[in-house]
Amino acid sequence: MPQLRIALAQTNPAVGDLSSNADKLVEWTRRAADAGAHLAVFTEMFLTGYPVEDLVLRTSFVDASIATLTAAAKRLADEGLGEIPVVVGYVDRTGAAPRTGQPKGAPLDAAALIHRGRVVTRTAKHHLPNYGVFDEYRYFVRGDRLPIFRLHGVDVAIAVCEDLWQDGGPVSAVAEAGAGLLVVPNASPYEREKDDVRLALCASRAREAGCALAYANQVGGQDELIFDGDSIVVDASGELVARAGQFREELLVTDLELPLADRKVTPGTFPVDAGDGTTITVERLELSAEPLPAYVPEPPTIAPRLDDLEEVYSALVLGVRDYFTKNGFQSVVLGLSGGIDSALTATIAADAVGPDRVHVVLMPSRHSSDHSVGDARDLVARQGLHSRLVPIEGIVDAFDKEVDLSGLAAENLQARVRGMLLMGLSNEHGHLVLTTGNKSELATGYSTLYGDSAGGFAPIKDVLKTTVWQLSTWRNSQAGRESDLLHHFAEPPIPENSITKEPSAELRPDQRDTDSLPPYDVLDRLLGDYVERDMGKGELIAAGHDPELVARVIRLVDLAEYKRRQYPPGPKITPKNFGRDRRLPITNRWRETPSS
Amino acid sequence: MPQLRIALAQTNPAVGDLSSNADKLVEWTRRAADAGAHLAVFTEMFLTGYPVEDLVLRTSFVDASIATLTAAAKRLADEGLGEIPVVVGYVDRTGAAPRTGQPKGAPLDAAALIHRGRVVTRTAKHHLPNYGVFDEYRYFVRGDRLPIFRLHGVDVAIAVCEDLWQDGGPVSAVAEAGAGLLVVPNASPYEREKDDVRLALCASRAREAGCALAYANQVGGQDELIFDGDSIVVDASGELVARAGQFREELLVTDLELPLADRKVTPGTFPVDAGDGTTITVERLELSAEPLPAYVPEPPTIAPRLDDLEEVYSALVLGVRDYFTKNGFQSVVLGLSGGIDSALTATIAADAVGPDRVHVVLMPSRHSSDHSVGDARDLVARQGLHSRLVPIEGIVDAFDKEVDLSGLAAENLQARVRGMLLMGLSNEHGHLVLTTGNKSELATGYSTLYGDSAGGFAPIKDVLKTTVWQLSTWRNSQAGRESDLLHHFAEPPIPENSITKEPSAELRPDQRDTDSLPPYDVLDRLLGDYVERDMGKGELIAAGHDPELVARVIRLVDLAEYKRRQYPPGPKITPKNFGRDRRLPITNRWRETPSS
Repeated sequence: MPQLRIALAQTNPAVGDLSSNADKLVEWTRRAADAGAHLAVFTEMFLTGYPVEDLVLRTSFVDASIATLTAAAKRLADEGLGEIPVVVGYVDRTGAAPRTGQPKGAPLDAAALIHRGRVVTRTAKHHLPNYGVFDEYRYFVRGDRLPIFRLHGVDVAIAVCEDLWQDGGPVSAVAEAGAGLLVVPNASPYEREKDDVRLALCASRAREAGCALAYANQVGGQDELIFDGDSIVVDASGELVARAGQFREELLVTDLELPLADRKVTPGTFPVDAGDGTTITVERLELSAEPLPAYVPEPPTIAPRLDDLEEVYSALVLGVRDYFTKNGFQSVVLGLSGGIDSALTATIAADAVGPDRVHVVLMPSRHSSDHSVGDARDLVARQGLHSRLVPIEGIVDAFDKEVDLSGLAAENLQARVRGMLLMGLSNEHGHLVLTTGNKSELATGYSTLYGDSAGGFAPIKDVLKTTVWQLSTWRNSQAGRESDLLHHFAEPPIPENSITKEPSAELRPDQRDTDSLPPYDVLDRLLGDYVERDMGKGELIAAGHDPELVARVIRLVDLAEYKRRQYPPGPKITPKNFGRDRRLPITNRWRETPSS
Repeated sequence: MPQLRIALAQTNPAVGDLSSNADKLVEWTRRAADAGAHLAVFTEMFLTGYPVEDLVLRTSFVDASIATLTAAAKRLADEGLGEIPVVVGYVDRTGAAPRTGQPKGAPLDAAALIHRGRVVTRTAKHHLPNYGVFDEYRYFVRGDRLPIFRLHGVDVAIAVCEDLWQDGGPVSAVAEAGAGLLVVPNASPYEREKDDVRLALCASRAREAGCALAYANQVGGQDELIFDGDSIVVDASGELVARAGQFREELLVTDLELPLADRKVTPGTFPVDAGDGTTITVERLELSAEPLPAYVPEPPTIAPRLDDLEEVYSALVLGVRDYFTKNGFQSVVLGLSGGIDSALTATIAADAVGPDRVHVVLMPSRHSSDHSVGDARDLVARQGLHSRLVPIEGIVDAFDKEVDLSGLAAENLQARVRGMLLMGLSNEHGHLVLTTGNKSELATGYSTLYGDSAGGFAPIKDVLKTTVWQLSTWRNSQAGRESDLLHHFAEPPIPENSITKEPSAELRPDQRDTDSLPPYDVLDRLLGDYVERDMGKGELIAAGHDPELVARVIRLVDLAEYKRRQYPPGPKITPKNFGRDRRLPITNRWRETPSS
């Protein structure tokens, strides 16, 4: 059978920074060529970065994407890399006339095949995801082509990301048309334990398409999303052949033996029923008909999977690092209370950007216990952070002189004074403010708007409290280790007392979290089922949760969500508005007007 | 030709409050019957309210919607209203098996025909809008039926909202199948001057369908949206026959002469090519074949259009009132500076909820000029608001003692102290905090996060500064008038000095807005083109804007948007998150668990 060596470029592009992504395309294609690869596959929308949100509705942006692709093709040839075919994602457009309901400019989530200085063919994502974190019906129109190109005697098909996740469409067209290999550029965000789902999906689609499948995924943090890499190659029977690491850039080079293409099948286009009510045009091309002379294959790489806690911790560190770096920050600031949430947040920050760029502020009030400042100082000493002490009592007294606030209003005031101090220091020194709230607190509304929730990035907002403790213990167990995602701390970086003491917001005398909330082990199991697994009330009770607790927690969560939306961040409402507020990706480098 | 008297119920449903919407259905059907109408048409998703966002993904909510419809049909008959056919919007489901990418439960944006205690037929929106303020691919699956029912010898077709705005689909199926009247339940949000577009659209679709068209639209504020009513009846040639008022509930009763249905066309279903790549099933039904005895028609109502400024002002008042009322607030609070933005905001609030429920706080700093407090006190006296004076100097000094902040950080601190005072009073007394920023400021970033932008509702956030002045002058010119949307003020409610003085944030000595921004008349023209009309840089220059100013304003606007997203409201990021945060409508009454 013919052989092919394929290289999957699992990389971290910068959204909006087309020229640096193009540089990266050349650099990684050279690495692929140096490794002797016969085909290089980059990720979905690699040249623009993913996701680009409302940027895609700007004509100038789509123009720039298309021009970058054409220039990159030429540049690859100019730099002696024209012989290796490259599959790469970018943004294109259909050129269709404007009509109501169609995204402005009719953009496509496209992929191109580049060879010998030319863009040989173009295709685009057929299935547009519009659930969960995706809103692609807002941004793209549907692609309806399936290119299959013959390379060294092997027919190679191209599909994009979601086309793998949904039934019908390009995968069933591959089955109908026949191919030896299906390559799939992806930008598939991390979710806990998604790696298992992803492997099973690749295996089942390979069997459905009747050919080997190579899945190249983006890596890195982009605003609220984290991409975990985990690129995969499976054979036609769905067996795992090769797999890249998680949360790191990697060129995954794999030798495959693939079926010889039928010589009677020649270039041309023909329609295929896509099995989803649409028709797909298959386009056959030929780059090279003859198989390569036989060569000795390299053994494939299968990177070991991270265990569950290391996987989550790695995602958090990479998320903070990329938000910090891609936004051009030089330092972070956060409030350190002595409690476990801020202790873990500080540690993640130190791992992400280095302890020397982490500034912590100790802001005790009259309700703070002695151990609070003590435990915070202990952490500062263990990690070598910058710290300052700013007691808030005098400021709270100044407010009390002007307005009478009691109960919850007085508790919120303390949290807001702390939030304002951090924002003031951020405005003065340019620090990124990290908030320290965990998911159990936030989901149940145990948090102050414009207080502890004020800040630019919330590293543990999706981590339940019980997982906060587990991650802290895990991180301490890694003391002495050093890696790309772990700073070297000789001693456990988190004080044991912060892990073991009873949680308290310390906003009134002798306050305990359990005054307002169920015990965290009980609460978190329920939040997992209600918030993450989206069970309804009946399902929750059927799953064995206490009916009274179910009713109480549903009320808390729904009320918290209601309050969050009732008091939104920014301003909202009214006639002839921006429509939906424009959503530009935060960490992006695209500027229509060059910055001064 | 046969006659029909139709009644369009232009009403203000409450999102999530199914039982009160059902009560309203009965009450307004009774009004229609009392007026002698032969058909009543309610708005899109009337029984659930519109929009319901993520509520539609809850099984229990869709169950409740369907059960409410069935019960309402029976109740209408029980109360002697069974003879008048009623077309009403609600939420249904297809019952399709779950699959990737399909909204949970496969919900439908449905409309039903009710008659004699039964749900005679059901249909659903075919074109799902997913642009601007709409995200319907996230929530609904597509409908593919077109019911046409014979009523007193006239064939009446039903389509839903967006099906009117896009080419192909139900309207072209009506043209193909033939009908005498097309009724369209809508929930179409207000935009400035949308009434002109809407009439033209109804006229052109009536000509395309070859029949008269009756368009019933929702009215009222719902979170960030305002629905303006403006229900319309046109004849088959597109001529306006009747039109309801704007921003008010109204039963629009209209007598029509319509073509006699072809007796040879009998009940049954058949497929029609919808002209958009799909097939629609036409379902013909018969309620009554014989035309009514001739009767003397009533003259039709054509409500006069509001002029542009009154239209905008009405939208703002209704938006504040419905947010306030539907969320169950009893009072509002805002900071009154003596400037025009807070003066207009206070006036809108007084018109919306009455001066006795408006609390204002005067919060002068060391940089406030004498006229600031004077002008604010003048407004309080003119309108009879509750006011208190809280100087912020002592609080700012207390911060200064603990941290050194200079420049912008010091300016922001003052705005944040004010924001915290308002939030503290809100927490203590339950007031809704109104923010006072206008669109020119917000678009260019001339605003402080967690400072003047802190609050629950921003009445003038979509009003450019030049329009703020125009609206203030207009409102003063209406002194002495009283209406549902204007409180009776014998004298002009806004001090002339607040309108005429030069704008300043007063956050540092002798500060003027023009230190940081272009003159507002120049700025607002450019913001209109860039932000509202979404022109690119080249288009802006071609439209005659100064190229340097274009570059500067694009930078300001894009940077402000970037900063807003960089420092978001609430927490964001990370692995295995809520996915996209759930979006429940704020002003809704739906509770899976009855509140305790």
